[in-house]
Amino acid sequence: MKIDVKKLKEIVGEDNVRDNIADLYVYSSDASVHSSKPDAIVRPGNVKEVQELLRYANKNKIPVIPRGAGSGMSGQTVPLSGGIILDMKRMDKIIEIRPEDVICKVEPGVINDELNMQLKPYGFFFPPTPASGKICTIGGMIGNNASGIRSVKYGATRDAVIGMKVVLANGDFVTLGSNTKVDSSGYQLAKLMVGSEGTLGIVVEATLLISPLPKFRAMGVANFATLEDAGKMISNVIAAGITPSMLELMDKVAITAVNNAQNLGLPDVDAIAVFECNGMVKEAVEYDMKRIKEICKRNNGTGIRVSDDPDEMTRIYEGRKKLFPSLSKYSEGLFTTALADDMAVPMSKIADTVHEIHEIAKRNNVVMSAYGHCGAGLIHTKILMDTNKKSQWQGAKRAVKEVYEYVQKVGGTTSGEHGIGFSKGPSFKQEKKDSLEMMRAIKKALDPNNILNPHKLMDSPDDWLTATHLRYQVKP
Amino acid sequence: MKIDVKKLKEIVGEDNVRDNIADLYVYSSDASVHSSKPDAIVRPGNVKEVQELLRYANKNKIPVIPRGAGSGMSGQTVPLSGGIILDMKRMDKIIEIRPEDVICKVEPGVINDELNMQLKPYGFFFPPTPASGKICTIGGMIGNNASGIRSVKYGATRDAVIGMKVVLANGDFVTLGSNTKVDSSGYQLAKLMVGSEGTLGIVVEATLLISPLPKFRAMGVANFATLEDAGKMISNVIAAGITPSMLELMDKVAITAVNNAQNLGLPDVDAIAVFECNGMVKEAVEYDMKRIKEICKRNNGTGIRVSDDPDEMTRIYEGRKKLFPSLSKYSEGLFTTALADDMAVPMSKIADTVHEIHEIAKRNNVVMSAYGHCGAGLIHTKILMDTNKKSQWQGAKRAVKEVYEYVQKVGGTTSGEHGIGFSKGPSFKQEKKDSLEMMRAIKKALDPNNILNPHKLMDSPDDWLTATHLRYQVKP
Repeated sequence: MKIDVKKLKEIVGEDNVRDNIADLYVYSSDASVHSSKPDAIVRPGNVKEVQELLRYANKNKIPVIPRGAGSGMSGQTVPLSGGIILDMKRMDKIIEIRPEDVICKVEPGVINDELNMQLKPYGFFFPPTPASGKICTIGGMIGNNASGIRSVKYGATRDAVIGMKVVLANGDFVTLGSNTKVDSSGYQLAKLMVGSEGTLGIVVEATLLISPLPKFRAMGVANFATLEDAGKMISNVIAAGITPSMLELMDKVAITAVNNAQNLGLPDVDAIAVFECNGMVKEAVEYDMKRIKEICKRNNGTGIRVSDDPDEMTRIYEGRKKLFPSLSKYSEGLFTTALADDMAVPMSKIADTVHEIHEIAKRNNVVMSAYGHCGAGLIHTKILMDTNKKSQWQGAKRAVKEVYEYVQKVGGTTSGEHGIGFSKGPSFKQEKKDSLEMMRAIKKALDPNNILNPHKLMDSPDDWLTATHLRYQVKP
Repeated sequence: MKIDVKKLKEIVGEDNVRDNIADLYVYSSDASVHSSKPDAIVRPGNVKEVQELLRYANKNKIPVIPRGAGSGMSGQTVPLSGGIILDMKRMDKIIEIRPEDVICKVEPGVINDELNMQLKPYGFFFPPTPASGKICTIGGMIGNNASGIRSVKYGATRDAVIGMKVVLANGDFVTLGSNTKVDSSGYQLAKLMVGSEGTLGIVVEATLLISPLPKFRAMGVANFATLEDAGKMISNVIAAGITPSMLELMDKVAITAVNNAQNLGLPDVDAIAVFECNGMVKEAVEYDMKRIKEICKRNNGTGIRVSDDPDEMTRIYEGRKKLFPSLSKYSEGLFTTALADDMAVPMSKIADTVHEIHEIAKRNNVVMSAYGHCGAGLIHTKILMDTNKKSQWQGAKRAVKEVYEYVQKVGGTTSGEHGIGFSKGPSFKQEKKDSLEMMRAIKKALDPNNILNPHKLMDSPDDWLTATHLRYQVKP
């Protein structure tokens, strides 16, 4: 079915439709390794326009792919079979902030950091903290169930979303969830929408729980000669009933990359842990930091440093914060790719998993760095490789497969916060094999013509490397 | 379709099937006002038996109603069109406790307090705390998304359930969710199952997040001459970033009932607030209690008492704890009925809602008491009336309708933690009117023969009073 661009322009106005080759190219990829061209980009400005667009698309069976900032790492917004990209960034109103009810209501195009700037004068913030906070939209965060460095204390986007307004595939407008923290009114469809990656409906408004800004915080760092010790330290902190607001791990590859890129002079150890506690009471924060320090020592941590001085905290955090951009400086000619980029494992398996990731990388002739929000069981990795070489892609493909096989073996799950898209499709389909039919039944019930972000999640291709275009030039 | 009792006995054994009149009578009601007889009661002992039972029931289109302790207040387990009650209490194994991963795995028949007794030696607990904790099962809590007095700090059952194993209507066995606190692996079907009241599948195992037992706690009480002041106090505590582990309200009817029944000599005020803070650090608990005291004073609270002495805390808590059994002593000849028994409203609307509930009761010639976990926006009420009189039921019916109309007007939701069943069906269907079709589509996709707990939630009767049997003798 050819798309009727004139019709699209009638719905959203001339200025909000693009189908020139340059724009199509920009919207053909996100932060994943993939690329595939849409047929048109449409930027709706209100609910009515979203409804009309979906009615048109549904009638004509045209794929519709909602998109926020395009910062997703798993290909969620890459239109594998073309169609319309629904760029939601124009719908960016903060509808209301109600500190007396501890909620706010926003349109999907609101940017995470912008929302927090608006909440600050009220003494509140929206806790999910993805690394892409400066650009990512609340709509995108809902699609992926984003979480970030503070998930160990505050959970993920799903925990903070209590209600939403959604346009379904047929153009119907529905209100889901409620305005209250507790809610036992039947099927919690707002929670189901979170993490569904745009395959079940288009979120046009969200009601979010907000949290009071903590008054005090302190940060610390500790070095560990072995991954085992670092892993035990993380497990012990959580089991001791401490709730740090951050509990991060960096492996040796990450440390080397940061040193190469930033010249921070981090020590030559197997692992560095970075932690933070926050709260309303200075003594409680100090007490928790003291306990974490003790646990670090008990697990052979060295160079333990703790501070509540803002400059010193910035320095401590610098290494972790600059990690992602630093990775490409690990070694000349190796580029960072978002592959096996996230996973979650039971707390006690973190050290083993990071160790195994290194073994897998070695075996497959690529470099892998592991780091992440380990206090919540979340591990991030990136694969560093020469993206020009076909053999490297084949090695990466084997590595991805082996990593997720291991994650499943230790009882972990394919994605901790970046979502499945189709980069993680094969592992997802393996992990969820007995509930894929259940997912497909729900998808079919809500989107019988399969127009909403097709070929993702349970319907993703069996092979992410051959089934899709790469956004890299690969020589044979 | 007549049920083949011989077949049922083949599946679960002679001893685990009942169809004598006495047992059918016992299983025809729960803690709601309703009653309707099942055709048989079956007590499966393992997953395979649940699968075989569902295959048989699905083939023969026989309703199957899963049941835990039968302590639900909205008629969730009352079999409106007969069928098989699936009594899940035999499946009561605690499968594993993994403090190192901060999770445990249990069968659905495990009793809440029993689980906590087993978790205690590890220094952990399962946070949802329904008043029925001594008898209610984890399966029932999942069905209803139970929460209780500590929801203000720890959330509800949905927040604690991260994975489960489920038998679907056709007998298929599926594993949902994961073992990790964060999880962005597609549709979160485990979360969808929580609160679905047995209409989408039979939970045969659940993976639960557990929390470290706090080392310190303190409790307080304050009296308020007006509901407005009490309501403002609650809002202010939450907005100040304090996270109490309990923040309860009792209205004048509740206070009178407790005084009549227990002779506790509570003061003659419009509202009493009971609060608790807990944590790992004594100073932090004390600091929070001090701040709550200040907020009470600022809102004209009197008789403010705070203590961390266990005996004194028990005394403070006594009034609240004995509230439900005391209600029937409010006045000679008035009985407590679970009608309009729970709701949740935005925090800032608590005082107005409680005030309105009293006006509605007066108008309709019944007595209503309001109390509950107001720190989470949750209000409980009971209707006290002469259950023999038809006119009282008609008044109660009008009162229920008016209460929920008001709750919806202020942006609240029909159930905060007791679930919908069919007592709350009319309000639920009004509140969710634009997403009922979506719910029905999901239900149909997963249970095409509609055998799992039919006539509940979106498919409940339009009138809970005329459409169903009451378990009371009512004179015309």
